[in-house]
Amino acid sequence: MSSVIYDRVAFVGLGLIAGSMSLAMRRDGLAGETVGTARSAETRSVAAEINLVDRVVDSAAEAVADADLVVLAVPVGAMGAVAAEIAPHLKPGCTVTDVGSVKQAVFDAVLPHLPTGVHFVGAHPMAGTEHSGPRSGFAELFEDRWCLVVPGPEAAPAAVKRLETLWTALGSSIGRMEPKHHDLVCAVVSHAPHLIAYTMVGVADDMQRVDEREVINYSAAGFRDFTRIAASDPTMWRDVFLTNKDATLEILGRFTEELFALQRAIRTGDGDHLFDYFTRTRAVRRGIVEAGQDTDAPNFGRGTAKE
Amino acid sequence: MSSVIYDRVAFVGLGLIAGSMSLAMRRDGLAGETVGTARSAETRSVAAEINLVDRVVDSAAEAVADADLVVLAVPVGAMGAVAAEIAPHLKPGCTVTDVGSVKQAVFDAVLPHLPTGVHFVGAHPMAGTEHSGPRSGFAELFEDRWCLVVPGPEAAPAAVKRLETLWTALGSSIGRMEPKHHDLVCAVVSHAPHLIAYTMVGVADDMQRVDEREVINYSAAGFRDFTRIAASDPTMWRDVFLTNKDATLEILGRFTEELFALQRAIRTGDGDHLFDYFTRTRAVRRGIVEAGQDTDAPNFGRGTAKE
Repeated sequence: MSSVIYDRVAFVGLGLIAGSMSLAMRRDGLAGETVGTARSAETRSVAAEINLVDRVVDSAAEAVADADLVVLAVPVGAMGAVAAEIAPHLKPGCTVTDVGSVKQAVFDAVLPHLPTGVHFVGAHPMAGTEHSGPRSGFAELFEDRWCLVVPGPEAAPAAVKRLETLWTALGSSIGRMEPKHHDLVCAVVSHAPHLIAYTMVGVADDMQRVDEREVINYSAAGFRDFTRIAASDPTMWRDVFLTNKDATLEILGRFTEELFALQRAIRTGDGDHLFDYFTRTRAVRRGIVEAGQDTDAPNFGRGTAKE
Repeated sequence: MSSVIYDRVAFVGLGLIAGSMSLAMRRDGLAGETVGTARSAETRSVAAEINLVDRVVDSAAEAVADADLVVLAVPVGAMGAVAAEIAPHLKPGCTVTDVGSVKQAVFDAVLPHLPTGVHFVGAHPMAGTEHSGPRSGFAELFEDRWCLVVPGPEAAPAAVKRLETLWTALGSSIGRMEPKHHDLVCAVVSHAPHLIAYTMVGVADDMQRVDEREVINYSAAGFRDFTRIAASDPTMWRDVFLTNKDATLEILGRFTEELFALQRAIRTGDGDHLFDYFTRTRAVRRGIVEAGQDTDAPNFGRGTAKE
């Protein structure tokens, strides 16, 4: 049986991540009360209708009042403004966390606003789907996934531990790291792959000599795998790239270098180079399946058993 | 109830595609008899053990004897040698087809060997999984997918029709096209995406400042989607790139151009460009889901219901 970890939890932003956290916390009794708000009146109204949090309120200031844990779950580019807005209303000694995909930029935007005695502990659940908005959350999202925890410089060890206890209760394993290293790791496993998928989908959509029906009908030959992550929330991803600029550009530079080497192998007919490269990448897939981070079912086990 | 379309069908090569064809044809009685062979003794022995075809034989020459349909299901780079080997043994008036991912190169390699009166009709089922080998096939692979049919210049219309009847019976819709256009379409929907996925997985595997455990553990943040297609058969894909060189390099050129434009937008902080691009790619995903070519379930509905 789980027990209450925070008496009151406030969510600023009610999208996929906040919604999934709230649903899991309420199911397992991890919070005394969950309170939530969102900038858009429609999101607030949907959240209230589907009972996403115990109480929906109209402003971030109102949401954080008397909260023991404040979860910033807005696009990274909006974190600074939210921090400024809530700062005067925070309960002394509370913990503020975020669920953004970038950490150094969040530290830079949020920390200057927080009063002394408030503990800032960043968190980044390595889980998600291509869906977004208040209806997209589900309590099991974080099970068997990892959550990266990035403590602020003045967070008390007990506050960090408590947040890690919450994420463990949500089903995740914890990886603790520094903001810079976090941003580099995420550039590799998430940000660069997303940009590349967006690019490939854009190119296909743009090919004038191949018509759109062809691209769509024949997508099961590989292309459709790219379209899932290229369907992710545009605002969130715009902010990720603008705020994790250096690491993303570094990985994209490495990617281009490698792509050019493979293009050269194709042009010169160097089959051994291609074969060796493709054999090595196969092993990475095996590692991911063995670590329980993906299914071994053909085509991800998509849809019905027939795939 | 289906009825026999070809009295005897010979498979040269017994991997994912041939195995799936044979299983479906036997289940539905579409062939009087299926005969198969493979270069490797181990593949032949597995195929016999799991009863993949009615009869396993030791050579391609033996397999095609008296066959009404001969299916070349070997890597594209091996098609020419197989055609030379079987040519003297083909039944007059039979149909030869292939299931390769490239068509102009297959035409160039195969057609010169075939005797007059033999009908060559290329086919390319736009379906597959990341698994390969004689154990990877399943009868439902082609259901609700497309099969591209590329008739040779001297194939009789009735021979083309008959092969299309087979593919329709296997559950696929038919798209008929010229070899050059086929190769361009496949460069867009399949070949370029595969090379890009291979590249991204290679880069991640190679990042010295991010350890391998990190890449694997945190892969659910996007990267793992790339690893599925980068786990495809290395020999098959080496041959695809070497034989569809021009179209693949053309699409990769377009891809790089677009990637550079997005990199520039990141570097200069042009959020509008990124947002607009990401909004457009979202619509492509919607089209694919609406066309029944992918699932709308979050994360492809991977694994258990919890994702």
